[in-house]
Amino acid sequence: MADVLAELAAQLRVDSIRATTAAGSGHPSSSMSAADIVAVLFQKYLRFDFQHPRAPDNDRFVLSKGHACPVLYAAFKAAGAIDDAELLSLRQFGSRLEGHPNPHVLPLVDVATGSLGQGLAIGVGMALASRLDQRRSRIYVMMGDSETAEGSVWEAFDKASHYRLDHLCALIDMNRLGQTGETELGWNGEAYVARARAFGWHALAVDGHDLNAIDRALAEAVATTGKPTCLVFKTEKGHGYSLIANKGGWHGKALSEDQARDAIRELGGERHVRIEVKKPEASRPEAQPTAAPLKLPRYTPDEKVATRKVYGDALRALSDAHPDVVALDAEVSNSTFSEELREAHPQRYFEMYIAEQNMVATGVGMAVLGKRVFVSTFAAFLTRAYDQIRMAAVSNATLHLCGSHAGVSIGEDGPSQMGLEDLAMMRAVCDSTVLYPSDANQTARLMAHLVDRPGVSYLRTTRAKTPVLYAASEEFPIGGCKVLRRSDRDVATVVAAGITLHEALDAHARLQDQGISVRVIDLYSVKPVDAKTLRQAARETQGRLVVVEDHWAEGGLVDAVLEAFTDGAEPLPTVKRLAVRKMPGSGKPEELLNAAGIDAQHIVQAVLAMKDTSVPTGAPEAPRKRPPGKPAH
Amino acid sequence: MADVLAELAAQLRVDSIRATTAAGSGHPSSSMSAADIVAVLFQKYLRFDFQHPRAPDNDRFVLSKGHACPVLYAAFKAAGAIDDAELLSLRQFGSRLEGHPNPHVLPLVDVATGSLGQGLAIGVGMALASRLDQRRSRIYVMMGDSETAEGSVWEAFDKASHYRLDHLCALIDMNRLGQTGETELGWNGEAYVARARAFGWHALAVDGHDLNAIDRALAEAVATTGKPTCLVFKTEKGHGYSLIANKGGWHGKALSEDQARDAIRELGGERHVRIEVKKPEASRPEAQPTAAPLKLPRYTPDEKVATRKVYGDALRALSDAHPDVVALDAEVSNSTFSEELREAHPQRYFEMYIAEQNMVATGVGMAVLGKRVFVSTFAAFLTRAYDQIRMAAVSNATLHLCGSHAGVSIGEDGPSQMGLEDLAMMRAVCDSTVLYPSDANQTARLMAHLVDRPGVSYLRTTRAKTPVLYAASEEFPIGGCKVLRRSDRDVATVVAAGITLHEALDAHARLQDQGISVRVIDLYSVKPVDAKTLRQAARETQGRLVVVEDHWAEGGLVDAVLEAFTDGAEPLPTVKRLAVRKMPGSGKPEELLNAAGIDAQHIVQAVLAMKDTSVPTGAPEAPRKRPPGKPAH
Repeated sequence: MADVLAELAAQLRVDSIRATTAAGSGHPSSSMSAADIVAVLFQKYLRFDFQHPRAPDNDRFVLSKGHACPVLYAAFKAAGAIDDAELLSLRQFGSRLEGHPNPHVLPLVDVATGSLGQGLAIGVGMALASRLDQRRSRIYVMMGDSETAEGSVWEAFDKASHYRLDHLCALIDMNRLGQTGETELGWNGEAYVARARAFGWHALAVDGHDLNAIDRALAEAVATTGKPTCLVFKTEKGHGYSLIANKGGWHGKALSEDQARDAIRELGGERHVRIEVKKPEASRPEAQPTAAPLKLPRYTPDEKVATRKVYGDALRALSDAHPDVVALDAEVSNSTFSEELREAHPQRYFEMYIAEQNMVATGVGMAVLGKRVFVSTFAAFLTRAYDQIRMAAVSNATLHLCGSHAGVSIGEDGPSQMGLEDLAMMRAVCDSTVLYPSDANQTARLMAHLVDRPGVSYLRTTRAKTPVLYAASEEFPIGGCKVLRRSDRDVATVVAAGITLHEALDAHARLQDQGISVRVIDLYSVKPVDAKTLRQAARETQGRLVVVEDHWAEGGLVDAVLEAFTDGAEPLPTVKRLAVRKMPGSGKPEELLNAAGIDAQHIVQAVLAMKDTSVPTGAPEAPRKRPPGKPAH
Repeated sequence: MADVLAELAAQLRVDSIRATTAAGSGHPSSSMSAADIVAVLFQKYLRFDFQHPRAPDNDRFVLSKGHACPVLYAAFKAAGAIDDAELLSLRQFGSRLEGHPNPHVLPLVDVATGSLGQGLAIGVGMALASRLDQRRSRIYVMMGDSETAEGSVWEAFDKASHYRLDHLCALIDMNRLGQTGETELGWNGEAYVARARAFGWHALAVDGHDLNAIDRALAEAVATTGKPTCLVFKTEKGHGYSLIANKGGWHGKALSEDQARDAIRELGGERHVRIEVKKPEASRPEAQPTAAPLKLPRYTPDEKVATRKVYGDALRALSDAHPDVVALDAEVSNSTFSEELREAHPQRYFEMYIAEQNMVATGVGMAVLGKRVFVSTFAAFLTRAYDQIRMAAVSNATLHLCGSHAGVSIGEDGPSQMGLEDLAMMRAVCDSTVLYPSDANQTARLMAHLVDRPGVSYLRTTRAKTPVLYAASEEFPIGGCKVLRRSDRDVATVVAAGITLHEALDAHARLQDQGISVRVIDLYSVKPVDAKTLRQAARETQGRLVVVEDHWAEGGLVDAVLEAFTDGAEPLPTVKRLAVRKMPGSGKPEELLNAAGIDAQHIVQAVLAMKDTSVPTGAPEAPRKRPPGKPAH
């Protein structure tokens, strides 16, 4: 057996060299350090059905050090899942074998890696999902030593022990060398072991080039209960080829053809070893979650409800209807109201504490194993996980994010707590959906759409209670908008969403008092945006748009509106942008909306200025009671 | 002395209650747990000149648990730095005492806190800057126990021990209770101690309400050399008022006036204790960095140079000229070329390894102590630190960020390594500057501007070598742009920057071959944007703009261009948006630019379509050699 494994490991090294030299780029040295570990894992431990990569009882292998994918692709070839010709297409345009693993094109991998330090958190999510479904899957995550400098790794260490994930195993390929030089801890395996133990793991240092030692260590991981296991493998970068083994300056460099020939000779030449990867014993047929009828919450006109509260109400309703709905929150569930799901279905609520990066990546891990994942925290703190959100899109994962406490309208807590860049951040995610409701019934309806919406979606909610504008029967398609005020005499269109929609309705009423009519559009769907309705409004209201948003001037509502007018086909309207432009402070919501120039008074002034009537002078108008505001239809 | 301290601690609790009850919101319970620690620290250990808060020899106190600022403001009052009337203005509109500390209005604090888990990394930066200046300052960072769940905290623990920062002291207020319930580790002080020790710190558990124990622990921290010290203080949230002490449900809640009266009675009433905070012994007068003449690198037309390489060349030149220039990099200094500063001035290069969050927050800590800080990594990986970047702006810090490897043009490494949302992310930072050069001499000149530019700035660099377009003598003001091609017969304006500018010049030449003239604008300054030139170009080129960018369609170049036309004064031109819209893969740069529809061929097609001439049919044009491209002036 050891001979077979040695042959296999040599083949993985040879094929990693062949593929990267053929590509003219890539990471052979980082692949070679991991080859012995991958050989033992695939040959003796991994249970995986390559015909059905997403089979629920499969073990999972996440290559967090995604740049070492040549050794993974070489293992896929040895397992018969790809052929040698495809292996040699590495990194070519149109190949399934990209420079870093990407499930968009290669279904054999569950997630994209390549932004370091995210694999273990994804493994935590897989382990939680697998346990929730009472599967026997084991989750293996291979990390580089350099990436353990990422704090997200320690968030994942912390959560894995907190949830006692003894079916999760971390494999650290301690090859000592990073991209530019030696890592902080070099070959100090005991330092890694001490950190893992302090974070509640079973951990041991292992010779990563001793096949029997690797075998014993993996057996010990399987036998360990009550806590996850971390194996710290001492390895050599480039192991197996004396020219580069354990030498600096060889990160991310393919060998020349001469060097490759030399290396393959030193490694004993090409081989044709085949891995017989065992399939999992199917523990149970795949559960077909039986959906109960959805009973969305309904709200009556003129009551005041915060959209963040509706997020919780609707999330609870969705979780009652769909057994595969789960929620994660970063220790603010009583602010985002995800606590409502926890109270209804405690086993489907996962407290991620104040660790947003791990929360999002864990959500990705659960999502790719079939859960419908809702992740919530303050909008401002989702910025903490932007890299994980970006990578969720590369992973082609479906993930539902909710950010509460948007904008200056949160008031006294001040700018550190205000989500003012969240729309810009979330619009710039590939194929994302971005929604910003203004009303309770609208929020509930949009949640019902989101639960079936693929890709990364974002719901922006408001802290303050706002009037109910819509009937519970009203529909809100994603990609639509609502015309709330219209007449044949409209001199401009005011486009708003969320908190500023209520300011726009107030401005409409004030302008009506002056005999001036404006159209008011509720742009609840920020991405995709309803270009047709916006264009029609522009045509019908003298080509004047005023867009008002509780967000920085860049990347938010106005930029979404302008998308409707940048197909190169027609001239654009005249647009006035009302947005937050200077650093806000603490204060009452109405004081901060006024100071930012995004309240009813400033909308009125903008409309008047646009139609060249003089702006009212003197003191700001006294605040006036908002009209309840009825939909125009 | 203990009596004075006990009186002082009681006063800090009373004043925290008075201020939050007057405000009607805030975090009294989180302030009360920390009061004894703050009392001993300010009375006996902190060396701080309140008349000169930025004096270089001052010790630094960073309240990472920013929501507990009432106890900090109460300490400022006890020290005579603010009066009681101001204390009671907490959280009111226009008050310097915001809901979380903000140096925009309150110079007594160095940085903004409130996004948890960032204070220790800032402290690392302060400790590095102070050591670099050979000061004797000690840096104290007070954290909540909940925020230690943030991985960024462990990145900072790691870097602090790596750099042996024995003048840095972490104070953990282990009050057991988070916002929604008990923390993961509760009162398990030994667990915190074990983690801190595993990360290379001297650490001990301390009774956080025993004034003598606090005193001894702080003395031990001062006496500890070779490693930083972490003091884990066991405390009670709400300590001192039996109604709320160590009880759940009191996070972020002000007491009612009756409860406040009751609490102040239990605490022994109001007091008027005064802290005599000692001033530091000035070790040396503040260094006036003497700038040597700046010798910017110069490049000759027709050589090909990657702008990322110029970043390194110019950074080295700036560091030769300015002794206060420092560089931080996340273990990719041979990709970003920050290695050039390391080679010239190793003591001013700080290797932050693969921990972008800590890198950015450490940069903020160095910046607020007067360093000119340049921070670099791949553009894609700056997303990892978006919360820290956002908070740098709230801290009013000057920080120069550089993101390399922008866009699909990086080629084979694939989407995980491509910066495609960086412009959207950085434009949506308050008062930010965003630059995207296309040429070597331009990059060098822009670096010379950036070194004196206040606020958060971002320079986007390109992986590939590109032709030199400009003379070394050319000037590039921030907020400007360059018209590279113009004629009186231009039928459209093509706006591009960075890699796509070279495609635009190629497209210009191809269109010239067809007898069609277009204007070409190099929009190197993305924020602020040159509205005047863009408007003039639109007027002079039949109101047609084609904007092409190697970035997602949202939040980047086209949205920056549209800013120039959204002042509500005039209608917008006809705009065609060429940007990345679907997930890219691996491939050669030219293959990926073509697949994304942002290469010369697609620019030509867009121009032709706009002027309603037929688009060339059949196979894509053969690639043609790019003209060297001379500036129009």
